Amino acid sequence: MKQKINQIEGGITAPKGFYAAGAEAGIKYKNRMDMALVYSETPCRAAGTFTSNVVKAAPVLWDKKIVESSPFAQAVVVNSGIANACTGKQGMECCEKEAECAAELLGIPADSVLVASTGVIGMQLPLDRLTEGIGKLAAAKADTPEAGLDAARAIMTTDTVHKQIAVEVVLGGRTVTLGGMCKGSGMIHPNMCTMLGFVTTDANISKELLQRALSADVVDSFNMISVDGDTSTNDTLLLLANGMAGNPEIVCEGEDYDTFCAALHFITTYLAKKMAGDGEGATCLFETRVVGAATKEDARVLAKAVICSSLTKAAIFGHDANWGRILCALGYSGARFDPDNVDLYFQGRSGRIQIFGNGTACDYSEEEATKILSDPEVTVLADMHMGEAQATAWGCDLSYDYVKINADYRS
Amino acid sequence: MKQKINQIEGGITAPKGFYAAGAEAGIKYKNRMDMALVYSETPCRAAGTFTSNVVKAAPVLWDKKIVESSPFAQAVVVNSGIANACTGKQGMECCEKEAECAAELLGIPADSVLVASTGVIGMQLPLDRLTEGIGKLAAAKADTPEAGLDAARAIMTTDTVHKQIAVEVVLGGRTVTLGGMCKGSGMIHPNMCTMLGFVTTDANISKELLQRALSADVVDSFNMISVDGDTSTNDTLLLLANGMAGNPEIVCEGEDYDTFCAALHFITTYLAKKMAGDGEGATCLFETRVVGAATKEDARVLAKAVICSSLTKAAIFGHDANWGRILCALGYSGARFDPDNVDLYFQGRSGRIQIFGNGTACDYSEEEATKILSDPEVTVLADMHMGEAQATAWGCDLSYDYVKINADYRS
Repeated sequence: MKQKINQIEGGITAPKGFYAAGAEAGIKYKNRMDMALVYSETPCRAAGTFTSNVVKAAPVLWDKKIVESSPFAQAVVVNSGIANACTGKQGMECCEKEAECAAELLGIPADSVLVASTGVIGMQLPLDRLTEGIGKLAAAKADTPEAGLDAARAIMTTDTVHKQIAVEVVLGGRTVTLGGMCKGSGMIHPNMCTMLGFVTTDANISKELLQRALSADVVDSFNMISVDGDTSTNDTLLLLANGMAGNPEIVCEGEDYDTFCAALHFITTYLAKKMAGDGEGATCLFETRVVGAATKEDARVLAKAVICSSLTKAAIFGHDANWGRILCALGYSGARFDPDNVDLYFQGRSGRIQIFGNGTACDYSEEEATKILSDPEVTVLADMHMGEAQATAWGCDLSYDYVKINADYRS
Repeated sequence: MKQKINQIEGGITAPKGFYAAGAEAGIKYKNRMDMALVYSETPCRAAGTFTSNVVKAAPVLWDKKIVESSPFAQAVVVNSGIANACTGKQGMECCEKEAECAAELLGIPADSVLVASTGVIGMQLPLDRLTEGIGKLAAAKADTPEAGLDAARAIMTTDTVHKQIAVEVVLGGRTVTLGGMCKGSGMIHPNMCTMLGFVTTDANISKELLQRALSADVVDSFNMISVDGDTSTNDTLLLLANGMAGNPEIVCEGEDYDTFCAALHFITTYLAKKMAGDGEGATCLFETRVVGAATKEDARVLAKAVICSSLTKAAIFGHDANWGRILCALGYSGARFDPDNVDLYFQGRSGRIQIFGNGTACDYSEEEATKILSDPEVTVLADMHMGEAQATAWGCDLSYDYVKINADYRS
C-alpha cells in the first residue's frame, strides 16, 4: 500500500455533496450552538459501530436499526447537552419524532435519518426545542468549510477544542475525499467505537465493505483510547459514503479497498488522539506503545492498562518519572510476561531515555526524565521481549480539573 | 452459626502470646516510625494471600515461599517508605538478610521470618538502616496494646488513620482472640488480598484450614474494595495462628471452623472498609450493594464496576446525584441484565430514596439526594431483578487531594 494520503483543510463537508450546519437550540446550554446536522445531497451507504454498554441510549438503538436494515442514510441530527439515555419509551419516541421532523424538512425518508445525542444521562430531551433546532439546521445547511466547523463545534460538551480533519486519496483514477469530526472528553473508554464520531466520504464503496472497513478500523483507533475508563451509553461512530467521487465501486478487497482503509485509519487515529489529548482536565496526550508482545491482543491489553492507570496518569500530570506504576499496570493487565525482561523508555519531543531494564531501574537522569514528561505529548515505550506484536494506546493525564469538571457536571 | 462475635479493644497484640513494636528507622521518612514487628512467643501456623500482579515485589516472593513450604512462622518484619519491588536480585537478597537479622535477634529460624514492604517501587532498601531498625524492634517488642498500636502506625504510608481491630469468640469452650491491622490508601485494587494486612490469632487450627479460611474470606472482603483500580505489586495478607488459646485443634470443617471464619470475616471486612474509607484523598466511604443478581460472580462484578468508576466517584465527591453514571458503570461491567428492570437507591445515615426504576428516573427530591450524598458513608443499592445473588463492594470518592497526593508522591 504505497498510496499517498493527503491531508487537506476542512472536515465533514470536504467530500463532494456533503452539507453541515450548527444551531443554537437551547437544549440545555444557553448562548452556544448545541445541535448539528450532517446531510448528503444524495443517499449514502452507512456503516456504524456502537457502544458495548448493556445500557444503550435511545439514539444508539435507533441508529443500529437504520444502519442494519435501511438501504441508505442521508442525514444525521446531533444534539449535545442531554444524552437521551435511560429515558425509556419516551426516549425512543423522541428519536422517531426527531427523524420524522428532519425527514420532512429535508425531503428524505425518515428511515434515512440517523440521530445522536451526548450529555447528561436520564433527562428527557425537550422535543419542542429539538424540532425548532432542526428547522434552523435545515435552513442553515451549507457545503462550506464554515458549516462543517459549526457542526464540529456544536457537538462539543466538556471538550475544549473542536476536532475535525479531511484527507484525499486517489481510487481508480478519481480523487476521493474523506472528512471526519468527533467530540469526546469524558466518559471516554470506547468499546466498539467512540463517544460521537462522524466520517463522511464521497467514495463509491459497497455497504458491506464500508462496514467491514469501519469495524476493523476501530479496534486500533477509537478502541485504543481512554480518558477515564468509563464506557459511555452513547458511543457512536458513523461513516457515510455517497459515492459522488465517481470512482469505480469498491466491491471486493484489494488495492482500492486497502487505500480506502488507510485513509479511513488516518482520519480515525487523528480524531482518536485528539480526543484523548483533550480528555477532561488533560494537560497532555499520554501515549503508550507496546512492542515485542506475545500476541496482538496482549499488546493491546498491556498498552491500555498503562494509559488507564489512575496512579500513572496522576504521576504524568506531576511530571514525575514514577515508572514503578507503569510496570505495576503492565503487571495487572492480565497479559503474561517476564518482568525481568522488560525494557521501559520515556519518549517526548525533548528526546528518549531508558528507565528500566534487566529487572531494575536504569541509571537515568531524573532531570532529563522530568523534561520529557513536561512535553505536551508523552510516550511510554515498553518492549516486552515476548514476540513480535505491537499496539499503541492513547490517554491523558489525571489532573485537578478532571475532578472539578466531574464533581459537578450536572449543575 | 449463632456464635457471638465480641469486638474488644486492641489489635494484633490482643491474642495470647503476640508481641509487636514500631520503630523509627529512617528508611525514607524522617521523624516517624517506619518499621514494625509482629512476633509470637511460640511458632505459628501461617496462611497468606498475595497480589495477582505479574510483577511481584521481592517480599511477596519471599513470603509465598515461607507460607507454602515452612511448617511455621513466628515473626513478620514490615517497613514503609520503599516497596522493594522491581529491585531484581539485590531486592531478593535484601529479604534474605532482613530475615536472617531478625532470626538472629529473636532466636528463631530465618525461614520462620516473614517480611513485607510498602512504598515507592524501584528503589533499593538501605540494608544498614533496615538492620538497625530490626535491632530497635527486637528490643522494644511487647505484648501490650500500645505496642500493637505502634506497629499499626508504623506501617502507614499515605494513610491518614491507623487501622486495627480485635474480636473474641468461644471455640470448644475456650476464648479465642483474633487481632488485625492493615495499611493501604493508594494503589488499592486488591486481587487475592490487600495492600498489607496482618491478622494474628491464638486459635488452634490446622495449617490447611487456616489457609482455606483466609483464601475463602478475601473474595468477599479485601478483594471487594478499590481506591484507584491499581493492583499493587506488594499486596500481602498474612494470618498467624499460635494455638495458645488452647481450644481443641480445628482439623475439619464444622461449627468451630464456621465460627472461626465468621470472626475472621468480621476482622477482614472491618479492615477492608477502613481502608476504602481512608482511600487517598477520600472524603467518604462509598459502598455499592448489588442484590437480585443472576450469579454471585455477576453481583461482584457489578458492585465493583460502580465503586471503580472515576466518573461516579467524582460525582459522589461533588454530592451530585448523577445516577446515570452508576447505571452506565453497571452497563459496561460485563454482567448481563435488563436496564428497564433495575431499581437504584441512594442510602445514607439520613435515609434512603429510590432514584431509578422501570427504565426511567424516579420523581425524587434532588435536595434529599444531596443530603444523603453528603453523609460520611454513602451506599448505592442496586436491585437487578435477575436472581438471588448479592455482593457488596467498597471504595471512596475521587477528590482533588487524590490527584495532589499522586502527582508528586515520590518527592
